[in-house]
Amino acid sequence: MTDAPFSTLDAFRTVLETAPGPDPVALEGARERNTQLTKPPGALGRLEDLARWYAGWRGHARPVVERPQVIVFAGNHGVTAQGVSAFPAEVTVQMVANFRAGGAAVNQLAKLAGARMDVVALALDRATADFTQGPAMTETDVVAALAAGWGAVDPGADLLVVGEMGIGNTTAAAALAHALYGGVPEDWAGRGTGVDDAGLARKAWAVGAGIAANPEATEDPLEALRCLGGRELAALAGAIARARAEKIPVILDGFICTAAAAALECAVPGALDHAVAGHVSAEAAHGALLDRLGKAPLLSLGMRLGEGSGAALAIGILKGAVACHSGMATFAEAGVAEG
Amino acid sequence: MTDAPFSTLDAFRTVLETAPGPDPVALEGARERNTQLTKPPGALGRLEDLARWYAGWRGHARPVVERPQVIVFAGNHGVTAQGVSAFPAEVTVQMVANFRAGGAAVNQLAKLAGARMDVVALALDRATADFTQGPAMTETDVVAALAAGWGAVDPGADLLVVGEMGIGNTTAAAALAHALYGGVPEDWAGRGTGVDDAGLARKAWAVGAGIAANPEATEDPLEALRCLGGRELAALAGAIARARAEKIPVILDGFICTAAAAALECAVPGALDHAVAGHVSAEAAHGALLDRLGKAPLLSLGMRLGEGSGAALAIGILKGAVACHSGMATFAEAGVAEG
Repeated sequence: MTDAPFSTLDAFRTVLETAPGPDPVALEGARERNTQLTKPPGALGRLEDLARWYAGWRGHARPVVERPQVIVFAGNHGVTAQGVSAFPAEVTVQMVANFRAGGAAVNQLAKLAGARMDVVALALDRATADFTQGPAMTETDVVAALAAGWGAVDPGADLLVVGEMGIGNTTAAAALAHALYGGVPEDWAGRGTGVDDAGLARKAWAVGAGIAANPEATEDPLEALRCLGGRELAALAGAIARARAEKIPVILDGFICTAAAAALECAVPGALDHAVAGHVSAEAAHGALLDRLGKAPLLSLGMRLGEGSGAALAIGILKGAVACHSGMATFAEAGVAEG
Repeated sequence: MTDAPFSTLDAFRTVLETAPGPDPVALEGARERNTQLTKPPGALGRLEDLARWYAGWRGHARPVVERPQVIVFAGNHGVTAQGVSAFPAEVTVQMVANFRAGGAAVNQLAKLAGARMDVVALALDRATADFTQGPAMTETDVVAALAAGWGAVDPGADLLVVGEMGIGNTTAAAALAHALYGGVPEDWAGRGTGVDDAGLARKAWAVGAGIAANPEATEDPLEALRCLGGRELAALAGAIARARAEKIPVILDGFICTAAAAALECAVPGALDHAVAGHVSAEAAHGALLDRLGKAPLLSLGMRLGEGSGAALAIGILKGAVACHSGMATFAEAGVAEG
């Protein structure tokens, strides 16, 4: 694991503030190349935007996608004591074993995308504190989780997908979104893996109690991550920040991934410029979260599994965009009239 | 080329009427398997529906996608005499050369999907008649084009994408859609490869003139294909019908592909049960056409290129659905609690 260049939340904030941007020369080269390809202008729609965006971040006008990485982070949440999930907390450990054995949905999708897959289990035997009673993590805890995410990214990757597993974590993500964007708990609490009406009411209660018990969470987005987030959410944020430092484009996954990412954007606007939204989840509040971030999803297929599954599926869309951009003939090469 | 089992439009209609359906045993086996996979029920959204649908048509409860085929059909249209396209008709021939040389968008997307790609040019030196003056094709012509489509399908393929190239063919598709579903010409005429307002007005005029000059087109969907369709549209229909006979699932592409397919569904309801909509195009009337067919698109990315490009990109979505369905561990295999 690479040593992370931060040991406090303030130092992490500085990392975000000093992160690099895309390469303007590569962006312009990609824009120019796009006008010459054998198709009517704009006929590939969002694929054209995606290819330019990817080219800018990779610093090549004619890039390739060859080494995608998928990382799944897992954590356990004290808030499960409030009966917020349809599944028992033991399932987090069981699913980590399933990821490692290659049996989960994200394993199949990562393999299909030709992606390396890593699994990072974060102190599963030591759940975070129940945030309805006070902060989920100390600063030491949250910085360690951010650093675990930072260190898990392969600096040789050319595309990153981060996913998560953690029984109870849609409740943590809902509380985080509430702290970041306000509203009422019912705006952000959804059915997750499939809770009934009573479970949904307990989730909304827990979200409201989390906000009430953690006043610092509404004052600072990184404090919100510490007080409400859970380790895997902080690790997602750390990995997304590392990708930015390495100029590795990111495809965001569902509600939990997006909530963790939103903490970065709220802390330092523009911190997610290297990220696109892979899909919009069936989890009710995900669309609202993407709207706040101004990111239109690439896919809308009613998925709500987490694990990075929606984003892993979207790797194929990005690969298609880049394959067209970098592989197509120009009008001149093909001897096709430009109309 | 396989000899087609029809030599008249009536015989082709009989082929559609006697086509096979999905395998109920495989469908039930796939439904049962889906309930056992390590995920909350329904958490993969439309991927679960897709996998079951594919399993039923392939006759295996745990299928694979190994041999997709992409076929691009090209034809020329007499209606280009009416100034309906932003590109000259010579571009059809030039783009066929580009497809054969591997330089077009669909080549990159077919390669990414691991698909075999075939290009079938249909009498490009002999445009169909201008349908604003009378039928585009004789019955001999349209049956030959249907048979060319039928014969181009590899019976060993396990998934089919059909695309098209033909300067003027959004006008032909608009006229066909108008004949099949009524409305006014402006409902179906769009900007295609990028005509200006005057070009759009000429397209709408041509659509209306085509309906007026071909009264038989509004009485019989297969007559509509003959009178308005153009050879590549008939070949698309022939290929989709052959896929049904071979129980090869089909991913439909954009406006032109869908208009050709709609002639089959209007002729014999249910004729497209083996087909899903790969994407919704930016061509204005495509969404309306998909609504009439009751097919929700897998992708919505503002693409409007044709060539089969949107459907070829959607192969990755279907592959992801089938990979999850057939590759994931069950709760029992993984030792995961079912909640």
